Amino acid sequence: MAEYSPGLEGVVAAETSVSEVDGANGRLIYRGGYLIEDLVPVTTFEEVAYLLWHGELPNEKELDAQRGQMAKALRLNKAGWGTLNAMDPATDPMDVLRTVVSAQGAGKTLNKPSLDEAIALTAVFPTIVGASYRLRQGKQPVEPREDLSHAANILWCLEGKEPDPEKVHWVDSYLVLLADHGLNASTFAARVVASTGSDLTSCVVGAIATLKGPAHGGATLAARNMLDKIGSADNAERWLNEAHSRHERFSGFGHRVYRTYDPRAKILREMAKTAAPELHRTAARTEEVALQILHDAHPDRPNATNVDFWASVVLTGAGIPKELFTTVFATSRVAGWTAHVLESMTDLRLIRPASKWVGPAPGKKPAQLAKR
Amino acid sequence: MAEYSPGLEGVVAAETSVSEVDGANGRLIYRGGYLIEDLVPVTTFEEVAYLLWHGELPNEKELDAQRGQMAKALRLNKAGWGTLNAMDPATDPMDVLRTVVSAQGAGKTLNKPSLDEAIALTAVFPTIVGASYRLRQGKQPVEPREDLSHAANILWCLEGKEPDPEKVHWVDSYLVLLADHGLNASTFAARVVASTGSDLTSCVVGAIATLKGPAHGGATLAARNMLDKIGSADNAERWLNEAHSRHERFSGFGHRVYRTYDPRAKILREMAKTAAPELHRTAARTEEVALQILHDAHPDRPNATNVDFWASVVLTGAGIPKELFTTVFATSRVAGWTAHVLESMTDLRLIRPASKWVGPAPGKKPAQLAKR
Repeated sequence: MAEYSPGLEGVVAAETSVSEVDGANGRLIYRGGYLIEDLVPVTTFEEVAYLLWHGELPNEKELDAQRGQMAKALRLNKAGWGTLNAMDPATDPMDVLRTVVSAQGAGKTLNKPSLDEAIALTAVFPTIVGASYRLRQGKQPVEPREDLSHAANILWCLEGKEPDPEKVHWVDSYLVLLADHGLNASTFAARVVASTGSDLTSCVVGAIATLKGPAHGGATLAARNMLDKIGSADNAERWLNEAHSRHERFSGFGHRVYRTYDPRAKILREMAKTAAPELHRTAARTEEVALQILHDAHPDRPNATNVDFWASVVLTGAGIPKELFTTVFATSRVAGWTAHVLESMTDLRLIRPASKWVGPAPGKKPAQLAKR
Repeated sequence: MAEYSPGLEGVVAAETSVSEVDGANGRLIYRGGYLIEDLVPVTTFEEVAYLLWHGELPNEKELDAQRGQMAKALRLNKAGWGTLNAMDPATDPMDVLRTVVSAQGAGKTLNKPSLDEAIALTAVFPTIVGASYRLRQGKQPVEPREDLSHAANILWCLEGKEPDPEKVHWVDSYLVLLADHGLNASTFAARVVASTGSDLTSCVVGAIATLKGPAHGGATLAARNMLDKIGSADNAERWLNEAHSRHERFSGFGHRVYRTYDPRAKILREMAKTAAPELHRTAARTEEVALQILHDAHPDRPNATNVDFWASVVLTGAGIPKELFTTVFATSRVAGWTAHVLESMTDLRLIRPASKWVGPAPGKKPAQLAKR
């Protein structure tokens, strides 16, 4: 039996051609061999989702066909809509998303995960995110629009007004960057669910449940909350030094896999200059000071900025309320989750690791409790 | 980096003192060092849940306190009830359970998993399972009863009549036997969700999603479906030989960990004689023939009967409709899921394995798609 590696660090749990995180060189490779920095300037989320699902970028006809399928799947069905309305509007947006996706994708029979289902589940995310936010604000949800892109529908369903093309561009770039990331915890969870022969909705629901945690998708909100506390570039040094002396962790720094600057963070940092100039100044100074403090404290550790740090700035500039950051993350990553599940179907094997018993030797006898 | 072990077979993914599957010796050890065969004759599900949560069996006062907490948590709240009613009554019972638990446990803030929440989530399972079944039958749900045990409430909420003590005994024994089982796939999924800092409801929802698959919790229904097709002891030999020549797998045989007879199956086989005498005869003959065929085909492989095979017979005798088998499994295992999550809180570490890239070398350039 293998050594115990806490957190399964370095343990290979799947072979994949969906994406690869080259942590040593700070590269993120998407299916087909594309580097993320080559894709962002020329592709939309829809094209990248197609790439992750099919293995190649779509031609115009293929893209149109997928758009048509997504357009038809934008609306909540009876179970999804009823569930959304049954929930307290003040509920955590990730809990709403987890529950409404579970209802929307519920079935009468056990179906093998399919591409059609992956497309339909992905398409409905902006609708759920926007509608739950509007209910939270005491407003009526608006109908999602078939003529809009995935990114534009997020803003439309939130705001109910024609989305600003520049904001759509920032959201779309974010969606492209976050669509997949190797065997991250939520994608791994989706593959564990799939491995028992469960259905695609179950896989996606398990992934949403996993993404919620602050050590994963919740980190973008944590980074923004830290920037809110810092407040201004001038205050960064004082705040960070005080936080460091209280042994607080800085949100938005460090990553399990990257040993150098996260390539997604690099792209978002540049974009943040235009998307949110004031917050960019605070963030840039915060980054500078934080990296210095971390380097001084742990000169041996790679302490590069991660994607969550700069994503929090770009999403802010795009007008996404911070309490929705994790749900917007999910609205992108669902493409990767479903692509991984579909890939795993070709050689499905139960993911069932071993555990190491650290309890007492067996044989203790219970008292005669006599089934009280 | 470690070798790739498909399905993480033999890879240690956690240290635990909640339970241990000693596959070589066919033993299942529960927290504190109790062998399952010592617990079944003298403990109820409530006592075993206490054991898994606390590390020792309760005294009378402790058990009463836990019973009181469970009694208070039996009812669906507004979100849970509204969600249950929003779903098509013909929905797969596991999809209903996944969605209603997600709604029932939804929160406004991110809470760290707690024992109180574990008790409350566990208590409500019989209510959801029973109510969704009655809606499926076109009947009104009945209120769960505070004076009944977990096992008795399953039958009461299903049937709406005073449960037969013998049937309660069989269900309760089943619940004791299935409450935990090392790092099975659904428990592992719960630990993956927990590892990101997510909440307890998310962990349980991820576990339900995972349990659903036929390679895990769905196997009990598959075993019963096979017995239904066989129909009678006389038909077992012909049916199994034909299925074998069609290369069909026999449901209810083989296990990732046990290399000998599953100790839970042994107890349930004995119980099945009284619980379902006729189905027991069919099952006993089926087992005899199946083990012979499997042994002849693969003399090197351990092909012992697993728990699902005999559980399907006992649950049938207890009056559980077969389409509810997986949800009743969940109604027991939720104790183990939550115990594992609470255990993992003491040393929380992100579960984030590596993957092996099997795609093309990076560097492929996309055509100028011009953000169509």
